[in-house]
Amino acid sequence: MSGGIAPPPATRRIENMSHRNYLLCRRSLLMAMGTAGVTASAAPSFAQTDPLPSWNSGGSRSAILDFVARVTKAGGSDYVPPDQRIATFDNDGTLWAEQPYYFEGLFAFDEIRRMASDHPDWANIEPFKSVIAGDMKGLAASGAKGQAEIVVATHSGMTTQAFNRTVANWLASARHPTKHVPYTSLVYQPQIELLAFLRANGFKTFIVSGGGVGFMRVFAQNSYGVPPQQVVGSSGVVKFETGADGKPVLMMEPRIEFVDDGPGKPVGINRFIGRQPILAFGNSDGDKEMLEYTTAGEGPRLGLLVHHTDAEREWAYDRASHVGRLDKALDEAGSRGWIVVDMKKDWKTIFPQT
Amino acid sequence: MSGGIAPPPATRRIENMSHRNYLLCRRSLLMAMGTAGVTASAAPSFAQTDPLPSWNSGGSRSAILDFVARVTKAGGSDYVPPDQRIATFDNDGTLWAEQPYYFEGLFAFDEIRRMASDHPDWANIEPFKSVIAGDMKGLAASGAKGQAEIVVATHSGMTTQAFNRTVANWLASARHPTKHVPYTSLVYQPQIELLAFLRANGFKTFIVSGGGVGFMRVFAQNSYGVPPQQVVGSSGVVKFETGADGKPVLMMEPRIEFVDDGPGKPVGINRFIGRQPILAFGNSDGDKEMLEYTTAGEGPRLGLLVHHTDAEREWAYDRASHVGRLDKALDEAGSRGWIVVDMKKDWKTIFPQT
Repeated sequence: MSGGIAPPPATRRIENMSHRNYLLCRRSLLMAMGTAGVTASAAPSFAQTDPLPSWNSGGSRSAILDFVARVTKAGGSDYVPPDQRIATFDNDGTLWAEQPYYFEGLFAFDEIRRMASDHPDWANIEPFKSVIAGDMKGLAASGAKGQAEIVVATHSGMTTQAFNRTVANWLASARHPTKHVPYTSLVYQPQIELLAFLRANGFKTFIVSGGGVGFMRVFAQNSYGVPPQQVVGSSGVVKFETGADGKPVLMMEPRIEFVDDGPGKPVGINRFIGRQPILAFGNSDGDKEMLEYTTAGEGPRLGLLVHHTDAEREWAYDRASHVGRLDKALDEAGSRGWIVVDMKKDWKTIFPQT
Repeated sequence: MSGGIAPPPATRRIENMSHRNYLLCRRSLLMAMGTAGVTASAAPSFAQTDPLPSWNSGGSRSAILDFVARVTKAGGSDYVPPDQRIATFDNDGTLWAEQPYYFEGLFAFDEIRRMASDHPDWANIEPFKSVIAGDMKGLAASGAKGQAEIVVATHSGMTTQAFNRTVANWLASARHPTKHVPYTSLVYQPQIELLAFLRANGFKTFIVSGGGVGFMRVFAQNSYGVPPQQVVGSSGVVKFETGADGKPVLMMEPRIEFVDDGPGKPVGINRFIGRQPILAFGNSDGDKEMLEYTTAGEGPRLGLLVHHTDAEREWAYDRASHVGRLDKALDEAGSRGWIVVDMKKDWKTIFPQT
């Protein structure tokens, strides 16, 4: 291990967060997977400046440290100039939790309930009726059409500024249904450290998520140190208009513009970043194409997947989960050399200490 | 003038460039406009480290220096934290020339001629026939439909990588039809200095152009110091596919996805940057909404327009030009407090010294 790796300037504390995938559904399973392709090896020791204190020694940690050492070693055969050190991270299930449902979906449900008093008709109309009653089975029965109606009701018909305020208010007050903490307390401490470590080594860190780009940008800077212009996500159509006061506003329209998921992720990377990443980190089949695109490039490349294996501290799910389904990407990991991070074994701490 | 303004680290030299607006047409006039709302005032002196050596003393230069001094003065009432110092620049006619036609259009015409031997049928089919014959009147007669066919023929049906190589090859070999220099020699030296000056003062500089995003990214880093992820532009649909060799590729499809012009510019800014700029620089009616959006924000804001008034060193055109038409935005400049930069008076040098 090279001694030339810079430690992060200071691990950021988590302040606020939340979101997801325009309520796109995936399958679910409450079982931990066993072995995950992680090869055991001795990790380097860091006397005083361990850049990844929440990562246990093992193959995952070693692979990360080794990769960063190689691409930053000036004169080395794997050296990558800083402007090409692009790292992309999925958000839900990769940077923060996504159970019992994508947090942006839970935001939308909370919003429907908050807005219900202004919409008395909702009490008798699906999917609103089920959301207001907390009947998730009823909601599921309304299918994709019902979910789209919830997205429209909560993600359009307002200015981008008004939406940002709504999300910020929700993040400040809402509590996770089973963990009973703010959603922004459910970011993954090992990943916060990894993001900071990469940036300290000249990487630019991007979020590339199926979640709504406007939703994520409200908390990405504070929670992850990722500024708005480095957040790539799904989006609805936005229209430039002149407000009643003569000032320009951006109105959110009830139409999907771009779904940044699956094959949409490399497309979104090309559109927003314009460069092929050298490191990509995901946790689900929705990240498969992003990892394929990233690791197929020439020169050193690193693809990683979070495997949710810790039913005690977080959740355990993969091949049949209704959120963050990890099936095909898990099958591909071995042949493509992707690192499968076993949350239970590899992460000493999962959530930030409060 | 505050002494706290940092000079740019070293003004970058121009290396290569080109582009425009998916051949969208505007009107043209080969007459210089007279007064342009620029108020004369004493410019500050910079003994050894003049950050804008190609700008003449006068109101435009003073307004820029004053604005940067105010927003960077810690503790001042107009102080803006670095992460909010977002500056957006149009490209054609603002960062480089756009006569006799948007350079990306000239690229497309050159490409049609280069590809003609593989398409013998083009010799008898419009708009290709006119392009091959160099008959611009015949091309104009083919209208928007003809122009769209040229865009499709030159900007789709290939991978993004192949397109990038094509643009790079063209930039390296093509010469401007009347200036007889590489297109990348027709960037504006005063703007290169301004971009560097802003960055030296903590700004992030973005391009926000009607031109094709993929086209601009090929030269924006070398010519302007603007990396790919800070280039916002028009785009076609891109599709993720697996190539014949099993490797993922991004194929450019023959469909427009987004037109980053006029009201599309604030939309593009919201989509890519996610923050309202505090400084915007354009040169045409296509920049009007970007300047409105930028200067309507709270706190210190600066809107600027290049007025092409120099028929001798560059070109002189505005209200009736077929490219870079400047009409409504010029009318609005006075009431909105936008700075109209008079190229002839305000720029000591226009193109980089070779």
